[in-house]
Amino acid sequence: MRHVKYGRCVKCGKTYEAVPDLTTCTCGGTLDIVYDYDYIQSIFTKDTLKNRQNFTMWRYRELLPVEETTPDPPLRVGWSPLYKADRLAEQLGISKLYVKDDGLNPTASLKDRASAMAVAKAREAGAKVIACSSTGNAASSLAGNAAAAGFQTYIFVPSRAPKGKVAQLMTFGATVISVQGSYEETFELSKAAIDRWGWYNRNAAINPYLSEGKKTVALEIMEQLGWEVPDYIAISVGDGCTIAGLWKGLKDLYAIGFIDRLPRLISAQAAGCCPLNRAIAENKPWHPMEENTLADSIAVGVPRNADKALMAIRESHGLVVNVTDEEIMAAQKLLGRTCGVFGEPAGVTGAAGLKKLCEEGKIEKDATVVSVVTGNGLKDVANAIAFCGEPISIPGRMDDLLSAFHQRQIHLD
Amino acid sequence: MRHVKYGRCVKCGKTYEAVPDLTTCTCGGTLDIVYDYDYIQSIFTKDTLKNRQNFTMWRYRELLPVEETTPDPPLRVGWSPLYKADRLAEQLGISKLYVKDDGLNPTASLKDRASAMAVAKAREAGAKVIACSSTGNAASSLAGNAAAAGFQTYIFVPSRAPKGKVAQLMTFGATVISVQGSYEETFELSKAAIDRWGWYNRNAAINPYLSEGKKTVALEIMEQLGWEVPDYIAISVGDGCTIAGLWKGLKDLYAIGFIDRLPRLISAQAAGCCPLNRAIAENKPWHPMEENTLADSIAVGVPRNADKALMAIRESHGLVVNVTDEEIMAAQKLLGRTCGVFGEPAGVTGAAGLKKLCEEGKIEKDATVVSVVTGNGLKDVANAIAFCGEPISIPGRMDDLLSAFHQRQIHLD
Repeated sequence: MRHVKYGRCVKCGKTYEAVPDLTTCTCGGTLDIVYDYDYIQSIFTKDTLKNRQNFTMWRYRELLPVEETTPDPPLRVGWSPLYKADRLAEQLGISKLYVKDDGLNPTASLKDRASAMAVAKAREAGAKVIACSSTGNAASSLAGNAAAAGFQTYIFVPSRAPKGKVAQLMTFGATVISVQGSYEETFELSKAAIDRWGWYNRNAAINPYLSEGKKTVALEIMEQLGWEVPDYIAISVGDGCTIAGLWKGLKDLYAIGFIDRLPRLISAQAAGCCPLNRAIAENKPWHPMEENTLADSIAVGVPRNADKALMAIRESHGLVVNVTDEEIMAAQKLLGRTCGVFGEPAGVTGAAGLKKLCEEGKIEKDATVVSVVTGNGLKDVANAIAFCGEPISIPGRMDDLLSAFHQRQIHLD
Repeated sequence: MRHVKYGRCVKCGKTYEAVPDLTTCTCGGTLDIVYDYDYIQSIFTKDTLKNRQNFTMWRYRELLPVEETTPDPPLRVGWSPLYKADRLAEQLGISKLYVKDDGLNPTASLKDRASAMAVAKAREAGAKVIACSSTGNAASSLAGNAAAAGFQTYIFVPSRAPKGKVAQLMTFGATVISVQGSYEETFELSKAAIDRWGWYNRNAAINPYLSEGKKTVALEIMEQLGWEVPDYIAISVGDGCTIAGLWKGLKDLYAIGFIDRLPRLISAQAAGCCPLNRAIAENKPWHPMEENTLADSIAVGVPRNADKALMAIRESHGLVVNVTDEEIMAAQKLLGRTCGVFGEPAGVTGAAGLKKLCEEGKIEKDATVVSVVTGNGLKDVANAIAFCGEPISIPGRMDDLLSAFHQRQIHLD
């Protein structure tokens, strides 16, 4: 890979050759993939992109750590829509708002970006089996992307994973181990199993290539905005890998001169599980927390990519905001009603955080903001129904309809 | 609309001016939108498309019945991926197979194509409210597309509609009436309510514009195949609107010379509810059937677009095939494992039908086939789980994992 220099430990700075099965530093730190930006600038311009017909995450190959000969994995990952959300912007009292619906990826979450990368790198590594632990979305996205590419998967999920994600896993033919315990325990068991059987490791905090896949969400946002940098990008944060990837993508674009400034990140966590935001707010090292939130994908008490995530929030002069489950579910409804976007609870936590910051007057009224929806609401239907209420249920006669409308004070005549 | 001539009744041939709120003929027949193909040929070529950056269903505006000034509705509908499914083709014993995953539309079904059209036409009609009855997908897609565009919706669903679809409806802010009865009773109540309150009618068999939206799936398939016509296109059939739309799109392309022959359609219905296929097989008029299938989206005992659908199957020298619920769920698993595509039961019924025809030797081994997946499996998780089984559930210790693998005869060491 002519454009990739090496993997460098974010803790101790030690560098490693960028082999396909790279994991963590001997010091335990996570690695960051370092690029040769001078070389990239010499081969990659905005015009290159203008003429490119590949509307997937792989349109940014010059900024992705794969060999030229590695084929694009089969599923169509990335290039999710960025909607201008004027009615929501008005409700929040800000000037310009965009919603990036990453729930429209093939397995319905942003995690497809990392899993597609895992598939590409597993192929380079000559692996036959890929494994991971996950609160659910990384799992189902790995299962789907791997199935399409012909890999076998072993996947570890905590037993609380919602049914939608489990149904995906089983349909994609993964061997699924549901661990009766926390995400932390699930992660540790997956690690032991991966060590024991030598499977290709798709744990996002271990495998440094995965946040390189995730960063494509930032590359797309910027290209879709015509390289006009927004003031803020709001996103939900659990393990820390996604916000770290988002930041990496923005820094890449800045480094090669595609954008001339960097936005501030808004890190939104659930109030019941916010170890990273707490560390920022108190300016202290992070400490584990319990996993008390219905936003299952970000219920991560021991964030595995804390270093990179904290660095991203700090470097961007980011804002942190914690939201209750009620605020999350209200945001789900709000996005549905104003944008026609149905996000899962963790998927809309960024929007919930943005709403809260707007209400607290912490976002300038003339700001341009992007809110990333990281997963589809169909993944967790039970919570949506619990919050949104049930339909009007009647027999099929006009009289029943009229009296049901009357009871609910729906006046139409 | 310079390129649209009129609406013409498929039963009696009477023509109607193509006003935005066009419904059915006075004789009760459904209308078909008739284009001025000569004019279209003069302004629309394959090269026009090559240079077009709009990758949504609206890239085919010259073939769509909307005014030039009508804006594209906000959600990104269409241009779903067409995957080459080599491993599945091999398993089915055919030469070339493509899977069109229409479950990746914004509200996760092909119905978004019709709902986006409804939104465009409702805007032309100056309407504020759109209403429909639906087994679920038309409903949730209308709710989402209308919410994004700022319309209010009244939506009638049979009480059996799966939870995923209901959750979407409620989140998108629709007023939902769940009718304790069949789809037929649901449809009749919606019709009475629409007549009474003058809402814009998004019932696909009533509003002739909707199959014009659906036809874009055919336009895309052909463009994605580089205008090389496949031998067969397999699709699930309920109300009949989707297969009618598919056929209309193919005929449009043939009429303007973009393709030089027409494929044969494969109409797949559930064995427990196959009034249209039965009519074809017995060469008799269709008769109502009970709605005995778990494939809820195609459980339509009284198909509302029977005329157009039967015409499409006959004109294309199509094949009909009925599949059991077990065959449908086996196809769901097969598509998941070989393609990484998770379709809802009705969504994979086309694939189930294709599999059955292959097993019966009715498809030539050198045939090229497209199978359309019409909806996402996340819409109906309960059935997927019931069929695919549960994960291996264990406490978080390696010993438990080893004995679980041992019990299941998974040998790794």
